Amino acid sequence: MTSTTYVHHLRVEALTQEAFEPFGEVIEARESVRHFAINSGFAERYHDLARIDVAQQGGHPLVSIFRAKPRVFPMAVDTMERHPLGSQTFIPMSQQPFLVLVAAGSAQPKAEHLRCFVTQPGQGVNYRAGVWHHPLIAMHASCDFLVIDRGTVTFDANCEEVSLPAGSVWVQP
Amino acid sequence: MTSTTYVHHLRVEALTQEAFEPFGEVIEARESVRHFAINSGFAERYHDLARIDVAQQGGHPLVSIFRAKPRVFPMAVDTMERHPLGSQTFIPMSQQPFLVLVAAGSAQPKAEHLRCFVTQPGQGVNYRAGVWHHPLIAMHASCDFLVIDRGTVTFDANCEEVSLPAGSVWVQP
Repeated sequence: MTSTTYVHHLRVEALTQEAFEPFGEVIEARESVRHFAINSGFAERYHDLARIDVAQQGGHPLVSIFRAKPRVFPMAVDTMERHPLGSQTFIPMSQQPFLVLVAAGSAQPKAEHLRCFVTQPGQGVNYRAGVWHHPLIAMHASCDFLVIDRGTVTFDANCEEVSLPAGSVWVQP
Repeated sequence: MTSTTYVHHLRVEALTQEAFEPFGEVIEARESVRHFAINSGFAERYHDLARIDVAQQGGHPLVSIFRAKPRVFPMAVDTMERHPLGSQTFIPMSQQPFLVLVAAGSAQPKAEHLRCFVTQPGQGVNYRAGVWHHPLIAMHASCDFLVIDRGTVTFDANCEEVSLPAGSVWVQP
């Protein structure tokens, strides 16, 4: 067996708004956001949880469902992507946790820029426009996510991808 | 015991796009919508499932969570509401079903205009602007819904409510 000092094993952090601040918003019904009773007391509205930024260059909000297959762990992190023209929101439609893997800064991400968060049930995320992130990482089961991103009438380039050296970064929840 | 011919007991229908067409969209990962593989095959994208119509009079998409308490059944239907300036989307963040109670037409709803649908797990809805609907009806447990509706910088009137005669309409899933 050999090993190399160039292999990074990511630490998995709890997802909180404070920790996620550089990347966007954690969407959740937490006490610290503005909330108030509606519907004669039959519901509590946790208000205005994400900045939907999709209007650049004639974009509009697009609502889709992503049905994600669970990954096998440890998982090699070999690609990251970003959408320079719009935010992208992921809301779990089940109580399953998932991993949120992002990179700090706008430069092409390297291993040392990566951060990995694990959600609690009921937490979603909104990536700001231009934030590098890994595609969806479901953990235990196939699950559905409500996604809000930027639609356009005609295609424009709003996805950049970058590859990381094969086998250089791993994550294990 | 007395009864009156003026009491309506609503029939509860299965929620399908075909049945819901007059009111908006059913948001679900069904085979009949456009879908395609993304993320190297780790996800299937069910694409563009709702028309988010929130831009009238300077509006923007607002993302909130509604935490709904379960109702007691049979439930008296005593109020309906509508939002003339924007669509409103409800996506369950759990696998719990809920009731979707709407009224056909734009006139103030009467008992004979009402229709009630029960969701399957994984189904959400988008009400078109101006569609009369009942506030959220959770059935079995407190549950969270991701809501996309119209936000504005300064308040404008975008909610009309109407009362139905007390005890005149009942629903029992």
